[in-house]
Amino acid sequence: MPSIPLPKDLRINAARFLADFEALAAIGSTQDGGVNRPALSEAHLQSRVWFRERAERAGLVVSVDGAGSHFARLACGQNPERSLLLGSHLDSVPMGGRFDGALGVAAALEVLETVREAGLHLPVDLEAVDFTDEEGTLVGLLGSAALANHLQPAEIQNPRGGRQRLLDGLQRAGLSEAGLFQAGRDPASLAGYLELHIEQGPRLERKGIPVGVVTAIVGIVSYRLVFEGRANHAGTTPMDERCDAGLGAAGFMLAARQLVVQSFPECVVNVGALKLEPGAFNIVPGRAELALEFRSADQQTLDQLQQALLALAEREARAAGLSVTVVFLGRHEPAPMHPAMRQAIGRAAADLGLVTLDLPSGAGHDGQSLANLCPTGMIFIPSQAGISHSPHEFSAWHDCVNGVNLLLQAALNFNP
Amino acid sequence: MPSIPLPKDLRINAARFLADFEALAAIGSTQDGGVNRPALSEAHLQSRVWFRERAERAGLVVSVDGAGSHFARLACGQNPERSLLLGSHLDSVPMGGRFDGALGVAAALEVLETVREAGLHLPVDLEAVDFTDEEGTLVGLLGSAALANHLQPAEIQNPRGGRQRLLDGLQRAGLSEAGLFQAGRDPASLAGYLELHIEQGPRLERKGIPVGVVTAIVGIVSYRLVFEGRANHAGTTPMDERCDAGLGAAGFMLAARQLVVQSFPECVVNVGALKLEPGAFNIVPGRAELALEFRSADQQTLDQLQQALLALAEREARAAGLSVTVVFLGRHEPAPMHPAMRQAIGRAAADLGLVTLDLPSGAGHDGQSLANLCPTGMIFIPSQAGISHSPHEFSAWHDCVNGVNLLLQAALNFNP
Repeated sequence: MPSIPLPKDLRINAARFLADFEALAAIGSTQDGGVNRPALSEAHLQSRVWFRERAERAGLVVSVDGAGSHFARLACGQNPERSLLLGSHLDSVPMGGRFDGALGVAAALEVLETVREAGLHLPVDLEAVDFTDEEGTLVGLLGSAALANHLQPAEIQNPRGGRQRLLDGLQRAGLSEAGLFQAGRDPASLAGYLELHIEQGPRLERKGIPVGVVTAIVGIVSYRLVFEGRANHAGTTPMDERCDAGLGAAGFMLAARQLVVQSFPECVVNVGALKLEPGAFNIVPGRAELALEFRSADQQTLDQLQQALLALAEREARAAGLSVTVVFLGRHEPAPMHPAMRQAIGRAAADLGLVTLDLPSGAGHDGQSLANLCPTGMIFIPSQAGISHSPHEFSAWHDCVNGVNLLLQAALNFNP
Repeated sequence: MPSIPLPKDLRINAARFLADFEALAAIGSTQDGGVNRPALSEAHLQSRVWFRERAERAGLVVSVDGAGSHFARLACGQNPERSLLLGSHLDSVPMGGRFDGALGVAAALEVLETVREAGLHLPVDLEAVDFTDEEGTLVGLLGSAALANHLQPAEIQNPRGGRQRLLDGLQRAGLSEAGLFQAGRDPASLAGYLELHIEQGPRLERKGIPVGVVTAIVGIVSYRLVFEGRANHAGTTPMDERCDAGLGAAGFMLAARQLVVQSFPECVVNVGALKLEPGAFNIVPGRAELALEFRSADQQTLDQLQQALLALAEREARAAGLSVTVVFLGRHEPAPMHPAMRQAIGRAAADLGLVTLDLPSGAGHDGQSLANLCPTGMIFIPSQAGISHSPHEFSAWHDCVNGVNLLLQAALNFNP
C-alpha cells in the first residue's frame, strides 16, 4: 500500500506537464519553433479552448471574467471564499516564443492537478489564471488591470494596438467594452498571486543559478521628445548655420546612455524609435521625434532618472541650437514583491535544494496590477542567452520542471 | 530721332520683366505666396502654355524636344547652326517658392526680346530654354540629362519620384519614354549655356554683394548606411550587453559633422533620414538605416571625403559592437564652370558696376548636365536669409533686375 507523501515531498508529474507544454506550443506555432498568438487572435482563442478543456479534464471549475481572463478553480480551501491565484498569460507577442506566459499557465494547471491528486486541504482555494493581453498587442496588462479595477477608459478609447484591433478582438472573443469595466474583483477574495515566468534576461544563466526570486517589477516611464530646428537645403546651407534636429537627437541618445551607465547603474534607458523630418537626403532635418523609455525597480530612483533625462534633453537641444518639446506618455510605478511571498519562495527553494538569486524584473508583468491588490510574488527560471520575445527564446527542460515544483511548494508554503 | 544704344549700354525692360515674373508666379500659386508646380503636374504644364504664348508674342520660334524641354529661338546669329542657350526651369519643388527656376526662364525670354528689339546681330542665335524636371520630383535634371544624352535607362525604370508618377506625368504632357532617349542634342549646335538663378544660400546677402559668379556646381554623393546590432528587450537586457544600432547611427551622425567642420571646411554633409527597427519603445533597435549625402565642388576632395566618411562609419560601428553595410546610391561629379563664361560674366558685371563674389553652387543645377557639352556658366543673385525650396524664398526686386541685365550683357560679351 503506497504511502501518502508529506506535502513538502510532493512533486509535479513532469511527463504530464511536458505534454501540456507541448500541446500549447503547437497552437499558433510558427515554422521557426515559436508561436504567434497575439491577444484575442484566433490562435490565442484556440489556446483558451485548450485551457478550458484541460482544466475540466483535471476536475477544475472554469470561469471567464468580463475581460476574458480564464480561471480554473480547485476547491481545496478551508476558506472557500478566498483563493491563491497562480498563473500567467497565453497570449504572445507577434511571432514570439513558446515559453513566455504559456510556461506559467501550464505550470499553474499542473500544480492544481498535483494538489487535487494528493487530496490536500489548504487554507484557501487555488485558482489557475490566464490573463488577457499581458503582452500589449491590444492594451497591455488588460486582464490584470481589469481585475484590479484600475483600467482607464482612455486606454480603451486609444489603445496602443489601435482601437479597431481591440474592437475586433473583443468581438472575436465574445467580449464587450462594458464588460472590461465589470471585471473588477473583490480584493478580499484574493489571498495572493504567484507567477512562474522565464527571466527574459541573461543574469541567471550567466551566474549558473536555477531560480530567481523577483524583488520588484520595474517601473516604466515613457516620453516622446520632439527636437525642433530648421529644415534647410543640405547643399547651400553652411555647416555652421544649420539647426539640425537630427544632431540634437543623436547627442541626446549618446548622452542618455552615458548618464545611465555612469550614474544609474541599476536602471536602463532606450531610444527605440526616431523619425527625422522632412526626411529627405538633401534636406537638413528640421524636426526629430524620439521614443524614450526608462526603467527602475525603485520609485525614488525612477524620479531622479526622469529629472536627469529631461534636463539632458534640454541641455542637448540648447547646445545644438534647437528647442525640445517633452510629451509625457505614461508611467507604471515599480511594484515591489510581497515579503511573505518572497519568503515562501525562498523556503521552498531551500527545501528543493535550489540556489536562488534575488533580482528585479526588467520586464512588465501582470504582477504589477496584482501587487496593489494582494501579496504578489514571481519566480524566474533562466533564459538561454537572455533571448526573449523571439522564436529563439529557450529555457532548459530541467529548469522548467524545477520552476513548476518550486511554484507548487511556494504555494503550499504561503500562509495567506 | 532716338539714338541706337551701343550693345554695352543695352538694358532690359524691367516693367515688362516684372509683368512676366508675376504672371508666372500666379500659375500654381499657393496661399502663402509660393508656387506648387512639380514637374509635369497640371500647374507646370500650364506654365509651359504661358512660355509658348509669351515666346510667340515676342516673335520667337518655339520647339519642344522629346523630354518636353521648351526652347524659344531668336534668329539673331551670323551662324544660325549654333546657339547660346539661356534659361532655367519652370517646375518647382512641391510647395516651393516663386523665384527658383522661374526667374531664370523669365530672364532668358526678356533678354531675347531685348536683343530682338535692339535689332542686334550676334555671332550665334540665342535660345531661351525651360528644362523639364530640374527639381527631381520625377527623376532630377531630366530635361538637361536627356539633352546631354546621358540619361540612364535605370533612372527611368526606377525613378526617385516613383515609376507611376513618371508615367502619369509623361502621359499628361503627351511625352513618351522612348522620346526621352531621343532628346539628345548635337553638341556642335551649342555655343554655350548661361543661367541666372537665386543663390539659395546666405553668402551674398551676408556679404552685401549683389552678384555671384559660380565657380563650380558641387558634386553630390549619396549612400544608404545600415548599422546592424541585435534587437532585444529594452527592460531585461543590461545596458552593457546591448548592441544598439541606434547608438551607432547617432555616433556616426555627430562624428560625420565633426569631421567635415574640422577637416573639410569647404564641404557639407547631411543625414536627412534615419529609421530604427523594429521601432518600438520597449525594444533595443537592432537595425538603423541612415540616408547620407555629402558635397564638394572639387572632385579630389569629394573622393577624400567619401573615403573618410565610410571609414568613420566602420569605426563607429565597431565601437558600438555593430556591423555596417554601405549601399552606394549615386554620384554626380562636380561641374566646374567654363573660364570663358566666368570671364564674360565678370566683364559684364564690371561694365554694370556690380561687385561680384566667386562662389560654388551647393545645389545641383541643369548646368551640371550642360558642362560636359558646351561652355557653361551661372550667375547667382542674393537669397534673403538663404531660404530656399520654401514659399518664403525671396530675392529683392532690384537684385533680380540687376541679374537679368547681367545675363543680357554676359550673353553679349561671350565669344562663342
